[in-house]
Amino acid sequence: MTSPRLHSDRHARRVVIVGGVAGGASCAARLRRLDESAQIVIFDRGPYVSFANCGLPYYVGNVIADERSLLVASAETFRERFNVEVHTDTEVTGIDRQAQTITLHDLRTDQTRTEPYDVLVLSPGAAPIRPPLPGVDLPGVFAVRSIPDSRRIRAWIDERGARRAVVVGGGFIGLEMVENLQHRDLAVTLLEKLTQVMPPLDAEMAAPLGAHLAAHGVSLHLGDGLAGIEAAPSGALAVVAESGARLAADLVILSIGVRPETGLARDAGLPLGPRGGIVVDAEMRTTDPHIWALGDAVEVHDVLTGQETILPLAGPANRQGRIAAESIAGRPTRFRGVQATAVVGVLGMTVASTGASEKGLRRAGVTDFAKVYLHPGHHAGYYPGARPIHLKLLFSTNDGRILGAQAVGTEGVEKRIDVIATAIQFGGTVHDLAEAELCYAPQYGAAKDPVNLAGMIAANALAGDMPLADWAQLGSTEALIVDVREPQEYAAGHIPNAVNLPLSQLRQRFTELPGDREIWLTCGVGQRAYYAARFLAQHGYHPRNLSGGFTTYQALRAGGVLP
Amino acid sequence: MTSPRLHSDRHARRVVIVGGVAGGASCAARLRRLDESAQIVIFDRGPYVSFANCGLPYYVGNVIADERSLLVASAETFRERFNVEVHTDTEVTGIDRQAQTITLHDLRTDQTRTEPYDVLVLSPGAAPIRPPLPGVDLPGVFAVRSIPDSRRIRAWIDERGARRAVVVGGGFIGLEMVENLQHRDLAVTLLEKLTQVMPPLDAEMAAPLGAHLAAHGVSLHLGDGLAGIEAAPSGALAVVAESGARLAADLVILSIGVRPETGLARDAGLPLGPRGGIVVDAEMRTTDPHIWALGDAVEVHDVLTGQETILPLAGPANRQGRIAAESIAGRPTRFRGVQATAVVGVLGMTVASTGASEKGLRRAGVTDFAKVYLHPGHHAGYYPGARPIHLKLLFSTNDGRILGAQAVGTEGVEKRIDVIATAIQFGGTVHDLAEAELCYAPQYGAAKDPVNLAGMIAANALAGDMPLADWAQLGSTEALIVDVREPQEYAAGHIPNAVNLPLSQLRQRFTELPGDREIWLTCGVGQRAYYAARFLAQHGYHPRNLSGGFTTYQALRAGGVLP
Repeated sequence: MTSPRLHSDRHARRVVIVGGVAGGASCAARLRRLDESAQIVIFDRGPYVSFANCGLPYYVGNVIADERSLLVASAETFRERFNVEVHTDTEVTGIDRQAQTITLHDLRTDQTRTEPYDVLVLSPGAAPIRPPLPGVDLPGVFAVRSIPDSRRIRAWIDERGARRAVVVGGGFIGLEMVENLQHRDLAVTLLEKLTQVMPPLDAEMAAPLGAHLAAHGVSLHLGDGLAGIEAAPSGALAVVAESGARLAADLVILSIGVRPETGLARDAGLPLGPRGGIVVDAEMRTTDPHIWALGDAVEVHDVLTGQETILPLAGPANRQGRIAAESIAGRPTRFRGVQATAVVGVLGMTVASTGASEKGLRRAGVTDFAKVYLHPGHHAGYYPGARPIHLKLLFSTNDGRILGAQAVGTEGVEKRIDVIATAIQFGGTVHDLAEAELCYAPQYGAAKDPVNLAGMIAANALAGDMPLADWAQLGSTEALIVDVREPQEYAAGHIPNAVNLPLSQLRQRFTELPGDREIWLTCGVGQRAYYAARFLAQHGYHPRNLSGGFTTYQALRAGGVLP
Repeated sequence: MTSPRLHSDRHARRVVIVGGVAGGASCAARLRRLDESAQIVIFDRGPYVSFANCGLPYYVGNVIADERSLLVASAETFRERFNVEVHTDTEVTGIDRQAQTITLHDLRTDQTRTEPYDVLVLSPGAAPIRPPLPGVDLPGVFAVRSIPDSRRIRAWIDERGARRAVVVGGGFIGLEMVENLQHRDLAVTLLEKLTQVMPPLDAEMAAPLGAHLAAHGVSLHLGDGLAGIEAAPSGALAVVAESGARLAADLVILSIGVRPETGLARDAGLPLGPRGGIVVDAEMRTTDPHIWALGDAVEVHDVLTGQETILPLAGPANRQGRIAAESIAGRPTRFRGVQATAVVGVLGMTVASTGASEKGLRRAGVTDFAKVYLHPGHHAGYYPGARPIHLKLLFSTNDGRILGAQAVGTEGVEKRIDVIATAIQFGGTVHDLAEAELCYAPQYGAAKDPVNLAGMIAANALAGDMPLADWAQLGSTEALIVDVREPQEYAAGHIPNAVNLPLSQLRQRFTELPGDREIWLTCGVGQRAYYAARFLAQHGYHPRNLSGGFTTYQALRAGGVLP
């Protein structure tokens, strides 16, 4: 073989990809389709070049019974279909950018060697965080990153007859593990440092999921961090919380989050960004013109906040793999950034989101936004079986641009988030959502789909037809809270200090309302309060609406946003 | 009361709405929110001002058991909530545009009177077509437009013990009636003049639904029109087809289509358009500045074909009601046109579409378009229970703009169409679909969602990376058809005259392929043929792909597009 520095058109370009799975494997396959002549090699530290890591919790839960289902493409497939050379169980331990070589450690033979590259693609992924706490390396304490990890958890459950599990961390993987461990008949306790599950969501939107988990027998231990793990001589574990609580377990899952695997890049002198990920340009190229990087280890542009972020999700990693391949092949290409569309399903409930959360906007210093809440049925109410979707829409008060949406419910949740995600992709506004022409038949939606309703409600707020009150000021406001539901609804539960004046009597009785005091309107989900607001506004009042009504109030309380 | 011509700011403006249900009722409610002072009156010929007409088939099927579920809002609700006066069982029989009055016929008292208007809103809807054929008015022959219609069908089934139904017309309502009559344990025959069900769809996309209906025991009588209906002295009916076939029935449903109710507008001298609907501007105003019109009776702009069309769907009617109200209230507003997003569910299968069909584009004279087919699972294949979605995407060969999409399957179908509908709303391209960031967890989608895949495949075709062969020329082409599946797949069924050269052997054997003959590639669903195309293109061949592979071939045959 010629020296790597002496390659020319006469010699096949050698493209070395470090890490398979989603991004690296996509990159290899796409590059082969664009460039038949390149020599493409993948090195992966693990035993499999391309597997469905999003399926690992379901393999633990035996929902996916056959491990082979998780293998997306074998080394043989890569060779046969794509003429791509794959070396598994081979760790890349160093990069010599000057010489354009990498150092390899063959984990089977324990031998080390050097290989040249013309183009290097870094797809190292992210590793589960193992906090430096006592006991995190005890037998029975697991992370869920690889097929061998899952296999070990399965074996532990089967061989030890594990009955009790503690899951530490209530994000995507933690929640999926909760479901799957319960599916294996383990009693599950979830320990989460925040006072809510699903940290990416705003607390009030995560609250229905927390209630759902509790109702399905999951022990929730929220607002308490991990202090350590102890083992009894019998082998039984105890998860010790920061509060001092001791949670008994036969099995512990650490799902606290992941950290980008940037050691290789850092050691090679490639710059890392403020969030700790590898810095790449819009073509996924690092500052070294011979090195591209992609996936969970890179920083990407968040199209909503305008900030750099790390988003360890398979969809963007796949897209980045394609983009890197196109860039390597010399085609014009550009990664458009991320918007953080995500979904998780737990015990029959679905939580999905796209764009920025309210707390994410605040962290990013955005202030010119507003939010509306709604609780429509997932399809027309007249058709049996409609289930509520709790939806929060965030939008710019400057121009109505959609900034983010979160939804939780049991049916049709991710569909609405996918539609809003698509609108966000185009820089759409709440008016666009109001005008969306979506599928409607009674089993599937409504003449005014939840997406339409979200847009209409936000547009009403934006137009000044329905000024919004700030839920956060409920405890301190001097405003008169008026609940416009019927008396029996009011009697069954209402916001403290709210007075009752039903919408059905408002036209006759509105003069009872004080003209010199701010009025905040509320009802069950927000619709009747809106009608009341329009009536009162046209009679000289200046009412504001508590978006989403009593249903939102309950979620805010459950989420700890309101006392 | 003052003369209607003498109204001024001192007097409340009298807004008269002819026809409630979706559009008229929406208009009234929205107008009240914008204008507390207007006098708003709705006249409806039927007994209910606002009911869920999309639910009528399900009321027949007893899926919706309680008739009251269909009532969206009662006259009392309109009075209480919106201060809107409602007169049901009152037919508007004439308009005097000069005097600004309408003539009313009270169907309960049989009396006629005249009422003034300042603003008139026509929301008359559309009536089921009853062709002038013998027997269409026999007892036991029904259309499905109103609650009383549905009630009569229910009573007929119950009282006569009807066992056999013939549904004439296989569009949305016809198919929903097929499902619901079967749900009532009737043996159902579907008579449809076209050789496919769901006339708005392209034939090959409707084919899986036809097969599904047949597999579920529905007798399909396609490609045969209605000649008449006969009754035996016993009361038993026989539907006589144009072919001479006689289909025995205890009950006949006419669901041939609807015709806009334009008599009132036409008699008043309001212009009708080329498609027979009332002409309105973008604010839903007719040529008379005092008269607006909306819903199933008006012509609207099709944003895909640029042509005027009539689209009797509830979603657009609702939007038009809001737009008309905003226009009447003097607010700037504009109806953006329609894109014909629609869905129907039948016996567990879902068919959905948005934008133009291929036949619609051809009718409109559009030629610069292409199409791709794909058959992805509705979620990741490694998670149990993935069901195929058959998807067809139409796009402009000029700029990649999405022109339309059709999908059929059992799960996740309408979600993908809603996403594509949203992209169409923004004038999106196939590249946008490829880049969409959608919800992915194993139960919900895939890292490359079917929508992403559709965009990627179309983008590959557009970029020249995968030139498309024309399925329609399969019978006449001189090209060599090469099936790149494995031998056992090929042996189980293949396109006639196709030769077999598996992708797994292509790199070794490609020189067996002739260099002087066009090559058309095919496989199971199109993926391996694409890989083969990229390989061959880089080795001097100029292959074309038969989009969607053998699965598409079978659908084209089942749809009668290929012999």
